[in-house]
Amino acid sequence: MKIDGIDKTIIKMLINDARTPVLSIARKVGVSGAAIHQRLKKLEKSKLIEGYKMIVNPKSLGYTTTAFIGVFLDASSQLAPTIKSLKAIPEVVESHYTTGNYAVFIKVLCKNNEDLMYLLNKDIQNIKGVLRTETFISLEQHINRQILI
Amino acid sequence: MKIDGIDKTIIKMLINDARTPVLSIARKVGVSGAAIHQRLKKLEKSKLIEGYKMIVNPKSLGYTTTAFIGVFLDASSQLAPTIKSLKAIPEVVESHYTTGNYAVFIKVLCKNNEDLMYLLNKDIQNIKGVLRTETFISLEQHINRQILI
Amino acid sequence: MKIDGIDKTIIKMLINDARTPVLSIARKVGVSGAAIHQRLKKLEKSKLIEGYKMIVNPKSLGYTTTAFIGVFLDASSQLAPTIKSLKAIPEVVESHYTTGNYAVFIKVLCKNNEDLMYLLNKDIQNIKGVLRTETFISLEQHINRQILI
Amino acid sequence: MKIDGIDKTIIKMLINDARTPVLSIARKVGVSGAAIHQRLKKLEKSKLIEGYKMIVNPKSLGYTTTAFIGVFLDASSQLAPTIKSLKAIPEVVESHYTTGNYAVFIKVLCKNNEDLMYLLNKDIQNIKGVLRTETFISLEQHINRQILI
Amino acid sequence: MKIDGIDKTIIKMLINDARTPVLSIARKVGVSGAAIHQRLKKLEKSKLIEGYKMIVNPKSLGYTTTAFIGVFLDASSQLAPTIKSLKAIPEVVESHYTTGNYAVFIKVLCKNNEDLMYLLNKDIQNIKGVLRTETFISLEQHINRQILI
Amino acid sequence: MKIDGIDKTIIKMLINDARTPVLSIARKVGVSGAAIHQRLKKLEKSKLIEGYKMIVNPKSLGYTTTAFIGVFLDASSQLAPTIKSLKAIPEVVESHYTTGNYAVFIKVLCKNNEDLMYLLNKDIQNIKGVLRTETFISLEQHINRQILI
Amino acid sequence: MKIDGIDKTIIKMLINDARTPVLSIARKVGVSGAAIHQRLKKLEKSKLIEGYKMIVNPKSLGYTTTAFIGVFLDASSQLAPTIKSLKAIPEVVESHYTTGNYAVFIKVLCKNNEDLMYLLNKDIQNIKGVLRTETFISLEQHINRQILI
Amino acid sequence: MKIDGIDKTIIKMLINDARTPVLSIARKVGVSGAAIHQRLKKLEKSKLIEGYKMIVNPKSLGYTTTAFIGVFLDASSQLAPTIKSLKAIPEVVESHYTTGNYAVFIKVLCKNNEDLMYLLNKDIQNIKGVLRTETFISLEQHINRQILI
Repeated sequence: MKIDGIDKTIIKMLINDARTPVLSIARKVGVSGAAIHQRLKKLEKSKLIEGYKMIVNPKSLGYTTTAFIGVFLDASSQLAPTIKSLKAIPEVVESHYTTGNYAVFIKVLCKNNEDLMYLLNKDIQNIKGVLRTETFISLEQHINRQILI
Repeated sequence: MKIDGIDKTIIKMLINDARTPVLSIARKVGVSGAAIHQRLKKLEKSKLIEGYKMIVNPKSLGYTTTAFIGVFLDASSQLAPTIKSLKAIPEVVESHYTTGNYAVFIKVLCKNNEDLMYLLNKDIQNIKGVLRTETFISLEQHINRQILI
Repeated sequence: MKIDGIDKTIIKMLINDARTPVLSIARKVGVSGAAIHQRLKKLEKSKLIEGYKMIVNPKSLGYTTTAFIGVFLDASSQLAPTIKSLKAIPEVVESHYTTGNYAVFIKVLCKNNEDLMYLLNKDIQNIKGVLRTETFISLEQHINRQILI
Repeated sequence: MKIDGIDKTIIKMLINDARTPVLSIARKVGVSGAAIHQRLKKLEKSKLIEGYKMIVNPKSLGYTTTAFIGVFLDASSQLAPTIKSLKAIPEVVESHYTTGNYAVFIKVLCKNNEDLMYLLNKDIQNIKGVLRTETFISLEQHINRQILI
Repeated sequence: MKIDGIDKTIIKMLINDARTPVLSIARKVGVSGAAIHQRLKKLEKSKLIEGYKMIVNPKSLGYTTTAFIGVFLDASSQLAPTIKSLKAIPEVVESHYTTGNYAVFIKVLCKNNEDLMYLLNKDIQNIKGVLRTETFISLEQHINRQILI
Repeated sequence: MKIDGIDKTIIKMLINDARTPVLSIARKVGVSGAAIHQRLKKLEKSKLIEGYKMIVNPKSLGYTTTAFIGVFLDASSQLAPTIKSLKAIPEVVESHYTTGNYAVFIKVLCKNNEDLMYLLNKDIQNIKGVLRTETFISLEQHINRQILI
Repeated sequence: MKIDGIDKTIIKMLINDARTPVLSIARKVGVSGAAIHQRLKKLEKSKLIEGYKMIVNPKSLGYTTTAFIGVFLDASSQLAPTIKSLKAIPEVVESHYTTGNYAVFIKVLCKNNEDLMYLLNKDIQNIKGVLRTETFISLEQHINRQILI
Repeated sequence: MKIDGIDKTIIKMLINDARTPVLSIARKVGVSGAAIHQRLKKLEKSKLIEGYKMIVNPKSLGYTTTAFIGVFLDASSQLAPTIKSLKAIPEVVESHYTTGNYAVFIKVLCKNNEDLMYLLNKDIQNIKGVLRTETFISLEQHINRQILI
């Protein structure tokens, strides 16, 4: 789909603050609020806009330990049920099927190292088919953003 | 900071749709719009709410290749300038300082494998101090969510 | 077997273009077409010439993802049936038994990363005995040729 | 581009034997030789047909050792000159830029293990910028074919 | 808990020599022996002081081989019984649950390499669930101390 | 040196509690306090007893992150100055020269993951000659004891 | 045991050529043949001299491929029967139990790469309990000698 | 070269004991001593017999630690001078140029772990160009023999 300069301004303003009122956008780009509204509907109908999300700060909720975990399975046929089990663990925020040597590669958020230990020990390593895991902890995150358009 | 049941409902509604009008939230939880407004200000002032973001679908923008890249440096002292250079590359959406054996661990979004090749070859591997990289491509992402509260 | 200068010229011309008419070769080397024909038969009877193949461009058929996959088996006795299964997968264009730590090392051609994911997930990892795989994608191929004579 | 059933028959016959005369193909598919000729020109003009090659048997030329070599460079900026140097080594028949941890991944054909040793020691490891190599030898090749159409 | 300068002096003297008489400490810091006694009781009741240990020199007992062993299990559920078994092996002086790719990471003291071989072969690798081990021997220890306060 | 049953009892009592008074030991083994005193002096003069140490609980001092770090150097000749630098970092409690692939293998205690990040980033990776590090965090320690006699 | 200068000369001469006649040694060191004979008996009775062996050149017997193979077992309890099986394979000339990550580390001599492939595929990988192997081929041997005395 | 049954008996007897007198061999195979002598000369002139060596037991000389060391160089051009330096270290009994990822792979014999530490630290790692080493110690050797004929 084609997007013009006005679409780009709308998108940039909403990426920056998803709660920007339609009228503020309208004033900025110099068209009517109704026109902005119509363009937004069109962008939402296309798959370009996935949604609007309030971003919660995990640290303020006490989640100070971010970790990446490579999961090895004892048989490749265990992949589908393992992903189902991972979805039921709230600390798992991303799960990928990647090239390289992991069966599944996940990102988890835990309150601290001790909770990560329980997560690994009780939740993840008890999933049927999980052979072993390889964990690395993010000690600092320098970049966290969406792709720029 | 303490958050009560009303705060939780507000947060859940806004995580789901950051553009939900204050009045819809007010009606749902049975308090005035002004009260919701006040609570939102308080949650924003605390670090719990980081912001409101429109989520763009990278695939609809043509970004079909997601990759994780472990970066090795030829000297640890190159870390700070390397992160500065990575920040200037728009395809780099996450950067972590992790345990394990990478100096930096990043996540990138590219239009396709060919663009990933140029990104690695021209942008990342030309950063002064970058010794070599280890890339693995995400062939499928099963889970992508925030931590639940 | 011994090959002389005329044989070499014939071979070089046909490596370059397998459809070169016998008469063009004859004119080039200055002998009769019948002599060229006879030499070709002799070279074919020896194992030196394996055949003449039209080379199809995989990219024009939509095959844009080339990958190498190291396959680990859960028991070495699974090797023979695994190779039989691999032969039945059309995307597998090479298979090697190598030193190093893979049980089998293969080269595959897929239409895109998503198809590679299905190939790994449905076809290769469902072969009985396949424990896990290690994949790396070729982002660019700089050299692709036969051994020079 | 669209290819019909007649095109497919032409392609399959020529993949099998690139020297099949136009008239044999014509007889098989029941159209005139001129029509086959025209279709071949069209397929060649599109990028689908890359060429016609005589396939030489490396073993009959004494090349009994096939090896894959992962090359590490001491700086990523050495990539372009390294590939140029690799192109000048006739034993290097493939070169790839891959995900994973190699800078370059190549396939070589040598007469025997001793020649592989000289190739590594004299030719490849003397290229400026080559830090080290990781070699694995193919002890047997079970599959060697083009993608089927 | 808060510790003042007098506490710190007491702790430093006892870290250095746990058998220092209360009166020597009292004289050093210029308070009564009873006061020192009272402070010690308080520090012991808090978790700050774990105990007082005579440190035995393993080499004088003939223990000349120190090794670190990464243990891999065939199922993560074997962790608890494995640790129980490890506790029953007197040569195992430390056991950790670590990030990275080991299920358990232990430190052992053996009389010599031959005893380490028996320890691995008879004691550790015979624990039900132990798949394999990865051992590295400490050839020299340069630093061995507690955290400074 | 030979140690008899009485020596063993003395050693076991003092390993358990280094502040056990000589008279308590004397009463337990049924010899005079002077005899115990004499035996202790002899054991101390031999290298069997290294000392008596108060054991401080690192967690009560806020040290909750224990990590093992494999250090790689850019030249083996950097080993001696590197160890000297490591000795000046109080968080480094053990340092080993090991078989395997690390130049130095150390154990560190940090207050939390953030401090570990600064330790790695500022202290260890700034030592001249340190090429890179490989860290794994101990999430739980199950065994921590001396060799039994 | 003590060995004097005369013993050393005897040993050096016999390490160099085990068939040196006793009388040649006697003449060289200036004592009687009987004395040499007596010293030899004494050195043989001690474990210093293991024997006298004719050294066969493997290459002249057609053994041109030397390889080291790390063997992984599916359970550590398979070690003893595996070693018994390895002893029955004549190409296995050394077998070690090593630190690091292999269960067994062996050295083999084969006539060529193809025979190595059969050795791995038929003989070693069919031993019950062998999970997988990691092979590296010696392309050249620069040093091959006994320890000097 | 062809060897007959009598040659084989001669070789087997001398592999077993290189000092077996020619006359004992002659009696065993039923030919004259002169004939044995002639055959031996012929076998020595061919490259089949490399020599006759007294085998010294390293353990009786106090060499109790056998280790394999993978050596990495900072540039492949350092290979030749490194091998020259290794030849000057008497503890190095084998040196190989291997596939896989080591530049050189050596076998060493040391009196004990401490001597291995000095060997690594002072002798090997001080060779110009040696970047790092990867050591694994042989804790037990089960097989040590020549290839059977």
